Amino acid sequence: MSHLQSLNTYFETKREVHLDELKQFLRIPSISAISAHKQDMKTAAEWLADSMKKIGLENISIDETKGQPVVYADWLHAEGLPTILVYGHYDVQPVDPLNLWETEPFDPQIRDNKLFARGASDDKGQVYMHLKAIEALLQTDGKLPVNVKFCIEGEEEIGSPNLPDYLMTNTDKLAADIIVISDTGMQGPGEPAVCYGLRGLAGVQIEVKGAKSDLHSGLYGGGVQNAIHALVEVLDSFRDEEGTIQVEGFYDNVIPLKDEERTAYASLNFDEDALKAELGVDALFGEKGYTYTEQTWARPTLEINGVFGGFSGEGIKTVLPAEAGAKITCRLVPNQDPDEIVAKLTAHIEKYKPIGVSVEITEFDKGKPFITPFDHPAIQAAGRSYEKIYNVPTAYIRGGGSIPIVAAFDEILGLPVVLMGFGLSSENIHAPNEHFHLENFDQGLRVIGDYYYEIAQFTKEDLKK
Amino acid sequence: MSHLQSLNTYFETKREVHLDELKQFLRIPSISAISAHKQDMKTAAEWLADSMKKIGLENISIDETKGQPVVYADWLHAEGLPTILVYGHYDVQPVDPLNLWETEPFDPQIRDNKLFARGASDDKGQVYMHLKAIEALLQTDGKLPVNVKFCIEGEEEIGSPNLPDYLMTNTDKLAADIIVISDTGMQGPGEPAVCYGLRGLAGVQIEVKGAKSDLHSGLYGGGVQNAIHALVEVLDSFRDEEGTIQVEGFYDNVIPLKDEERTAYASLNFDEDALKAELGVDALFGEKGYTYTEQTWARPTLEINGVFGGFSGEGIKTVLPAEAGAKITCRLVPNQDPDEIVAKLTAHIEKYKPIGVSVEITEFDKGKPFITPFDHPAIQAAGRSYEKIYNVPTAYIRGGGSIPIVAAFDEILGLPVVLMGFGLSSENIHAPNEHFHLENFDQGLRVIGDYYYEIAQFTKEDLKK
Repeated sequence: MSHLQSLNTYFETKREVHLDELKQFLRIPSISAISAHKQDMKTAAEWLADSMKKIGLENISIDETKGQPVVYADWLHAEGLPTILVYGHYDVQPVDPLNLWETEPFDPQIRDNKLFARGASDDKGQVYMHLKAIEALLQTDGKLPVNVKFCIEGEEEIGSPNLPDYLMTNTDKLAADIIVISDTGMQGPGEPAVCYGLRGLAGVQIEVKGAKSDLHSGLYGGGVQNAIHALVEVLDSFRDEEGTIQVEGFYDNVIPLKDEERTAYASLNFDEDALKAELGVDALFGEKGYTYTEQTWARPTLEINGVFGGFSGEGIKTVLPAEAGAKITCRLVPNQDPDEIVAKLTAHIEKYKPIGVSVEITEFDKGKPFITPFDHPAIQAAGRSYEKIYNVPTAYIRGGGSIPIVAAFDEILGLPVVLMGFGLSSENIHAPNEHFHLENFDQGLRVIGDYYYEIAQFTKEDLKK
Repeated sequence: MSHLQSLNTYFETKREVHLDELKQFLRIPSISAISAHKQDMKTAAEWLADSMKKIGLENISIDETKGQPVVYADWLHAEGLPTILVYGHYDVQPVDPLNLWETEPFDPQIRDNKLFARGASDDKGQVYMHLKAIEALLQTDGKLPVNVKFCIEGEEEIGSPNLPDYLMTNTDKLAADIIVISDTGMQGPGEPAVCYGLRGLAGVQIEVKGAKSDLHSGLYGGGVQNAIHALVEVLDSFRDEEGTIQVEGFYDNVIPLKDEERTAYASLNFDEDALKAELGVDALFGEKGYTYTEQTWARPTLEINGVFGGFSGEGIKTVLPAEAGAKITCRLVPNQDPDEIVAKLTAHIEKYKPIGVSVEITEFDKGKPFITPFDHPAIQAAGRSYEKIYNVPTAYIRGGGSIPIVAAFDEILGLPVVLMGFGLSSENIHAPNEHFHLENFDQGLRVIGDYYYEIAQFTKEDLKK
C-alpha cells in the first residue's frame, strides 16, 4: 500500500474523531487581544501541548515569553535527513460584533460541510491539520520520513510582538532546513496555491511648511508659495503617467521576474473584468509592461496613503495654507532594502522640493521583502503534493502584502519559507461567521502528509536557500 | 481765501465738537451680527439720519430691507454737474474677547492721538468724515461743488446680504456718476493710497473616486488606481514649476498691466525682504515675469485651499484610498469672467483625469473682479487730493482680495468705483482695541473736501467709465 493510500484510509477512519477533537480546540476562546482571556490562552497552549504529546511528539515545552507562551515540540529521529519547522498560532481574533454570528463563535458547528467557529480557518484548524498529519504518519508507518519541529505562538493576531525575541534566543532549538506555514489561502475553491514570496514595506511622512501661518489668499495669493501646491508637486513627481515610479534607483535591486514565473502567473488566467466589477472601477491601473498579477505580487509600489492640509470643512475658505502633509508607503520586492529605499525617497523629496517651503520627513516602520526562489525544491515539492491530491495544477503565487513574522523567520533563521495555505478568502477570517471548508481540511491533511515524503527525497544540502 | 484754506480753518475750529459728536456715534453698539443689538442698529441709523439732516442734506430716508435699514440722503442742487454716491456702513463687528480691550469698546477714548472704539476706523469714523466734509463745504461756501448721494448700510459686517436687492430696486434713486467708498486702508502711516481694482473669485471642489471602498495596499497596491495619486496628478497639472497656470485659456481675457501701472507699483519700492521675514519663508514664489505687487494685485491665481483623502491620523495605515478631494479657488482680474473660468477649470480637470477614477466637480460662489481704469479722471483726481494734503505722492494700488459689495456696485450700478481709504492695517479692525489715527481723520476731512472740488472740474461725460 502506498503512503497515500495508507493516509487516505487513516483519515477516512478517523474523520469524526478528528473533527470532534478540533472542536474541543475551537471551544477555547483564546483571544490574545483581550486581557480577560489570559487564562484561556494558557488553556489553549496546554491543550495543544497535550495534543502534541498524545500523537507522539517529543521535547514538548510551553515556553514563556513576555506575552503569551510559545508551544514547542519535535520529532528528530530521521537522522541525517532534513528538518521541517512548522509555524502556526493558537490565538484567535476578537469576535465582535457578536450579534452578527449565526451560531456562537466558540460553539463549533458544521453546516454545509463547513466548520463554523472563530479560529476554524485562522489558524487553529490549519495547525491541527499538521498535528493530525504527523499522527497519521506515526500511526501508519511508525515513524516520520523527516525530522519535524513545531513552533506555535499565541500572539500572531496582535502582531507577534515577542516572537522575534523568542526566535533570536532559540536559534539552536529551532534550527531546521525549511519552514512551513499554513496560515494563508488558496487561489479559490479547488485551486491550491503555494506562496513563495511576500512584499516588504517602507514609508515616510512628508510635511511641507511654508509661511508661519495660513494666509489670506486674496492678499498674498499669487506671490507666496502654497504649501499644498508644493506638496502636490513633490507627490506628483513620484510616478509618471504610466505608473512607473520615478524615484532615482527605485528599481535598481529588484530581482526581475523569471520567465517561468510570468508563465506560471499567466496560466492562472486572472479575471480582470471580475475584479473591476468587484471594485467598481472602469479600468485597472498599474506599472506599464506588467500584468495585474505581476504588478501586485512581484513589482514594488509607491502609494500615497493619506494627504492633508488647509481647509477641508464644508464649503469654501480662501486660505493660502501654510502646512500640508502626506503619508506614503512602498511595497518592496526582493532584493530591495527598506533602509535604502527610504534614503532614495528622501533624496528624491529634497530634489523636487519647490522653493518657498521646507520639508520634514519622518520614517515609518520598515519590513523586508521575502522570497524563496520559485524553483527551490521545497516550493516545487509543495506544488507536487497539492497536485497529487487536488488533481489540478498548483498556482505558484506571491502575496502583495507583508506578513511581518514571515520576514522575521526569513531574517532571523535564514531558512526557505514555504507558505502552504488551505484557507479561502470567503471564509470570514477576522469577521463574524468564520468558517473552514472541510473539503480543504480533508484534502489538506493528505497534502501535508505527502509533503513530508516529498521533502524526504532531498538532502539537507539540496534545501539550502 | 482758497477752498483749502477755508476748510482748514473750519476743521481746526470745529475739531473738538466733531470728535465729541463722533464719540456719540461710536457709543451706539450697532453690532449687526448679534440679534440682541437690533434696537441699537435702529438707534445708529436714526443717529445718522439726524446727523445728515443737521448738516443740510435732504430727502433723508431710513429705507427698510429684509435686514437692517439703509440710510439714504442727498444734496442735488449742482445742476448739470456730476453726482458722487458715497457708500459706507454704520454697523460694526462684535467685540469678543472683551477682556482684551484696554478700554470699553463702546466708550470711545483718545490716547496718543488715536481714537479707540469699535467702529472708529471701520467704518463709522470714515463715514462721519464724509458728513463733516459736506458740512464744512455747506458752511463755508453755502453750497456743494457737485451733487452728492449717501447710501450707508447696516449689514456690511455680515456680508451685505440685502444690499444687492436694495441696489437693484433703487437704481434711479442711487443714479450717480462715480461711487466713493472710504472703507479701506492707506499703504502705511503718511502714505495715502487710491485703490482702483480688486480681484474676483471662482472656485471648485474636486472629488476623486476610485474603488468602492479603501483597499489593502498590499493586496491591491500597484494594480489599482490610488485616488490620492490621481488627484495629485490633476492638481499638479494646474501650474508649472515657474508658477504659471496651465489651464487652457486661463489668461485669455486678462487685461495686461499698463506700463504706467507697472511704473506706479515699482515706485512703491515694496520691501520683499521684510515680507519674507514677516512670513518666515526663505523665498517668495509667484508667476514668472511679474513682481510680487503685480502678482498679488493684477494677476490671477489658482490656489489649492485644502486637500483631503485617505488616512491622516498618527502613524501609518497602509491603505489604498478610494476617495480624495481638494478645494481650489482662483482670484480673478479684469476681464476674467468667473463662469468662464469655472468652465475652463472643469474642462482641464476632465482632460487631466487619470484612468481608473471618476471626478465630481462642485462650484463655489463666484465674484467678479473690478477695476476702474488707472487713468480714469476720478482715480487721478483722488490721487491729487491726497497729494495736496499729505504732500507725498499717492500710491495707486489694487487689492488682491475681493470685496463683494464693490463688485455688486460695479455690476448693478455700472459706475466707476473709487476706494479712498483712511485706515491703517495696524488699527485692529475686527479685533480688540480698534482705533483710528486722528492725523488721518484730520487730513482725511481735508482730502474729501478737496475731492468734491476736484470732481466738479469734470463733466458727467468725462467720468463715464
